[in-house]
Amino acid sequence: MAPVIRKLAIIGQGLIGSSITRAVYERQAAGEVSVTDASDKVRARVVELGLVQAKVVSTAGEAVRDADLVIICVPVGQIAAVSRQIAPNLKSGAIVSDVGSVKASVVADMSANLPDGVHVVGAHPLAGTEFSGPDAGLPKLFVNRWCILTPAPDCDPVALEVIRRFWEALGSQAEIMTPLRHDEVLSMTSHLPHLIAFSIFHTALRDEERTGSEVIKFSAGSFRDFTRIASSNPVMWRDIFLTNREPILNALRELLSDVEACASAIEAGDGATLEAMFSTSRTTRRRVIEKEHISLKPEKPSEQQPRFLARPYASDD
Amino acid sequence: MAPVIRKLAIIGQGLIGSSITRAVYERQAAGEVSVTDASDKVRARVVELGLVQAKVVSTAGEAVRDADLVIICVPVGQIAAVSRQIAPNLKSGAIVSDVGSVKASVVADMSANLPDGVHVVGAHPLAGTEFSGPDAGLPKLFVNRWCILTPAPDCDPVALEVIRRFWEALGSQAEIMTPLRHDEVLSMTSHLPHLIAFSIFHTALRDEERTGSEVIKFSAGSFRDFTRIASSNPVMWRDIFLTNREPILNALRELLSDVEACASAIEAGDGATLEAMFSTSRTTRRRVIEKEHISLKPEKPSEQQPRFLARPYASDD
Repeated sequence: MAPVIRKLAIIGQGLIGSSITRAVYERQAAGEVSVTDASDKVRARVVELGLVQAKVVSTAGEAVRDADLVIICVPVGQIAAVSRQIAPNLKSGAIVSDVGSVKASVVADMSANLPDGVHVVGAHPLAGTEFSGPDAGLPKLFVNRWCILTPAPDCDPVALEVIRRFWEALGSQAEIMTPLRHDEVLSMTSHLPHLIAFSIFHTALRDEERTGSEVIKFSAGSFRDFTRIASSNPVMWRDIFLTNREPILNALRELLSDVEACASAIEAGDGATLEAMFSTSRTTRRRVIEKEHISLKPEKPSEQQPRFLARPYASDD
Repeated sequence: MAPVIRKLAIIGQGLIGSSITRAVYERQAAGEVSVTDASDKVRARVVELGLVQAKVVSTAGEAVRDADLVIICVPVGQIAAVSRQIAPNLKSGAIVSDVGSVKASVVADMSANLPDGVHVVGAHPLAGTEFSGPDAGLPKLFVNRWCILTPAPDCDPVALEVIRRFWEALGSQAEIMTPLRHDEVLSMTSHLPHLIAFSIFHTALRDEERTGSEVIKFSAGSFRDFTRIASSNPVMWRDIFLTNREPILNALRELLSDVEACASAIEAGDGATLEAMFSTSRTTRRRVIEKEHISLKPEKPSEQQPRFLARPYASDD
């Protein structure tokens, strides 16, 4: 079977970029692969690793020459600059995509900086680990994970179909959304939890200062799980919050109205409302998330993807 | 070496009660053990399990006769009733304790209903699993976990020392706090995260209703971890919120001020403040929680205590 992509260019060889490089090789998803990274050190390391049949080149402009699909795997804040850099060298009909956590601003940045005749499709693979750099890449990172595709408004349906097939070839399940809808969905399921988890440490630290006693020391499993995401990269998250401002603030307003409803029931001593509220939450979580584990689980549960496996919940409270 | 307790009574043989029964046997922490449960079925099952040398009796009153230490392992809302039931049969100098997640109301309930000459010390072992009932008990459940002890104001220091030694004999690390301070600490590290996790499902469900599209389906690892605690028992949590109202509402107010500060920085596009905020959160989490994993880890990492083991954090965003 012919590979999905004849010539692929991957710009950036961090965790996601180098995982794509590995996955493409393992699954023979592209006939020819050209990769680059802004860092000399990273490029040298990719050559050294020697784990791919990819051609490592010095510049993004060189990498994209004659490419059918270009995937920009750099931080969200640098996508506009990379788009400008590659624009002159893209062939007509090329598809340009990315892997960023925010889509409206990224798709707009790419569309504004790329020539007519180039197809812009944002992509966000919901996959990752806490590690970074070319050594952290995993060939199975995307297996049985969602990849959300966000085509620009005028995107050619054939181009969209090509990138859908590409991500499916890497083992992902593709879902198509508008860039704005992506940003709304992720605001709720990812950005908002991060905002709360980052914030609660400041609350706990202020309590420790005020009382002169340790609080977080006694955090049980619930707090550990709840705040695990507060270990995430501050710079990456700063950029996500800055580029996805409105959807995040809207999601926060919505959450605060639910928190307020819960607080009012506590204040009123309204046990029936609290119990009904918590029952809905538990049922929803079990229906949606625990079911999801079954329908979309990785083909090879391994050390590589520890976070995706169903895990018994043990309360420590 | 003589056991810490000559005669122990355990009232309630659910997850925690039956874990204490098993742990006491395994560690020979008491000379004689008398257990009971309000449910005929549970009592029969404890006899059937035959895993302890405990005497199973029909009533709490019978169980506590001649006991040096009584541990009430029933839901928080039933502790006052059990206290009244056992009061006439307690010997002078007996220590009465519990295992509830809220301490001020529980210690007050016990103190109000028990006779003079009985020592009241609340206890909260920060340990558990998502299972319940006598079959769920684990002999090593308390190993290398905190057990917070909350003596009544007039508690005899010798009685406090006895129960401290008892929990240490079960493998726990004991910490002494006032009941109110316990409730404040747990408000922050456990009750508040539960409040938010329960609430965010209502926010997500409303978004799904409004847009007619699925949101939670695309929740990545961050949302899974963040909301794991929303699988908890709604009735137990209703009672915790009702009995620990003020500390929870105070902690919520504090959190909301931090969330507000974060939202203002997002609104103002103040990247420097966001980055500084998130860096503090990450540093604190790593310093306190990830360090804690090392200093207080279970002696035998096993399937029994999956939530306490350090686990790599894998972001899915």
